[in-house]
Amino acid sequence: MKRILIAASAGFCFGVKRAISIANETAGKAAASGASAPDAIPIRSLGPLIHNPQAVEELEKKGVHVVESVDDIPCGKVIVRSHGITRRDAEELAGKNVQIIDATCPFVKKAQEYARSLSREGYAVTVVGDANHPEVKSIISYIETGVPVITSLSDLKEASGIRKVGIVAQTTQSFENLREFVSVALKRIPEVRVYNTICNATVLRQKESMAVARVADVMIVLGGYNSANTRRLAEICRELNPKVLHIETASELSPDTLLGVSCLGVTAGASTPEWIIEELVASIRAIWREENIQVSYFQ
Amino acid sequence: MKRILIAASAGFCFGVKRAISIANETAGKAAASGASAPDAIPIRSLGPLIHNPQAVEELEKKGVHVVESVDDIPCGKVIVRSHGITRRDAEELAGKNVQIIDATCPFVKKAQEYARSLSREGYAVTVVGDANHPEVKSIISYIETGVPVITSLSDLKEASGIRKVGIVAQTTQSFENLREFVSVALKRIPEVRVYNTICNATVLRQKESMAVARVADVMIVLGGYNSANTRRLAEICRELNPKVLHIETASELSPDTLLGVSCLGVTAGASTPEWIIEELVASIRAIWREENIQVSYFQ
Repeated sequence: MKRILIAASAGFCFGVKRAISIANETAGKAAASGASAPDAIPIRSLGPLIHNPQAVEELEKKGVHVVESVDDIPCGKVIVRSHGITRRDAEELAGKNVQIIDATCPFVKKAQEYARSLSREGYAVTVVGDANHPEVKSIISYIETGVPVITSLSDLKEASGIRKVGIVAQTTQSFENLREFVSVALKRIPEVRVYNTICNATVLRQKESMAVARVADVMIVLGGYNSANTRRLAEICRELNPKVLHIETASELSPDTLLGVSCLGVTAGASTPEWIIEELVASIRAIWREENIQVSYFQ
Repeated sequence: MKRILIAASAGFCFGVKRAISIANETAGKAAASGASAPDAIPIRSLGPLIHNPQAVEELEKKGVHVVESVDDIPCGKVIVRSHGITRRDAEELAGKNVQIIDATCPFVKKAQEYARSLSREGYAVTVVGDANHPEVKSIISYIETGVPVITSLSDLKEASGIRKVGIVAQTTQSFENLREFVSVALKRIPEVRVYNTICNATVLRQKESMAVARVADVMIVLGGYNSANTRRLAEICRELNPKVLHIETASELSPDTLLGVSCLGVTAGASTPEWIIEELVASIRAIWREENIQVSYFQ
């Protein structure tokens, strides 16, 4: 008997589900009012709504067009993506004749607010995360000027003359990474104030994925190549299992990968739609061509 | 050639030096004004001024008498010991016709103040330290009622429903211990605010002692058996060297201990007077009876 073991919390998190639902609702309303007509109000998302090209493509079909800059939004409706946008972009949008529909994840919003209030209280602010990620950029943009901003462990190690530091994390960071930043800060800075803004869904998904990676012969991590949390899942699994494959969809799966495998592990990032996981399971069934395949969820 | 290697920061820390100097000054003033007369103003310390019986005995000879309770102080001068006293004792003293001379270590005072301000801002307060130590008791006494108070790792692990916690440490705690409390708190509590109140002298003494313990054949830790920081030094050294001896004075040293030893390590707690270290070195010289003994300080 062959086995497919899926991390139960693989796929869409609360913030992504909410953003998709907001986008679908906006597109649905437009369709109901005859949005396919040439004079329909355009719907745009500033940057991809979530970090999954396949899901973004589906939304595109429904009329939600991705643009990269505020300058590309002269009018109509704009959906603010789940990772949030910078304060400057938000202010520019507010100054335009556009309708803003905010799909920023509420947990990201919290991290933005903590970063802002810490800086207002004179704390140096450390954001634990990928400095190039839109979420981290949006969090950083809320830090008031006048306090040091630190985004790397090496900068934190070299920080000097700082009496108090506030730490927040990208919502999809690993707890170990946050803990390392906190430990380094504790050694050098007398007051360390931490808001653990890591999302519980992320922690749970990472835990379950690690448990699956430990027992699987091969581990498949599904999710956008541009999805930091998916890449981190793959990283974490690789520490426990040498055979980890990060792919976006089942079409990238080569049958060779499954040779000699009796237990296949599956997990997926926070922005991976359910149908991508289902498609993978169907592909595996087709490759294995066995009657007796057990699909179970680990939680 | 035999070698005695002494941790350079062994012995009296700033707070202890300051307390001893305040006590000596107070006793000196009394002597200058004829304090040996029966009607002289009595000088008392509430609890031992520092945790070293030999140093306290020296002060006793100078007229500084240790009492255990505020009730034992009807009049005269009272010296508040380096570890601080509880807020209740301080208030009771203030209500009496006594002159209060405060020799509380300024770093302990800071920890008291942080504990108080954290509780006023609604934080649960965690004090990392020995709950029975007078310093920790004094810190805890400044926590305003109405917030949870946590002093053990097991209580922190079981804490529930706490949204924000403030952490301070007994000034002589090890950094690793503080870090462990912070890590546990981070896992369970969304906001963790840490004031690292561990004294630099403690950190330095521990580091130097560890380095000496690593190379010494036998390691001697000098200090009061009632001194928590000395006991902790012995603990830390034992993790690196199986032959660690915690003694109060050279008189406890058996010549057998030095058999086959070519490098003897020495360190001493924050409340160990310099003359106790010097006496030990003299005793070792007497036992070894060698011309060629190198005494060096590690820093």
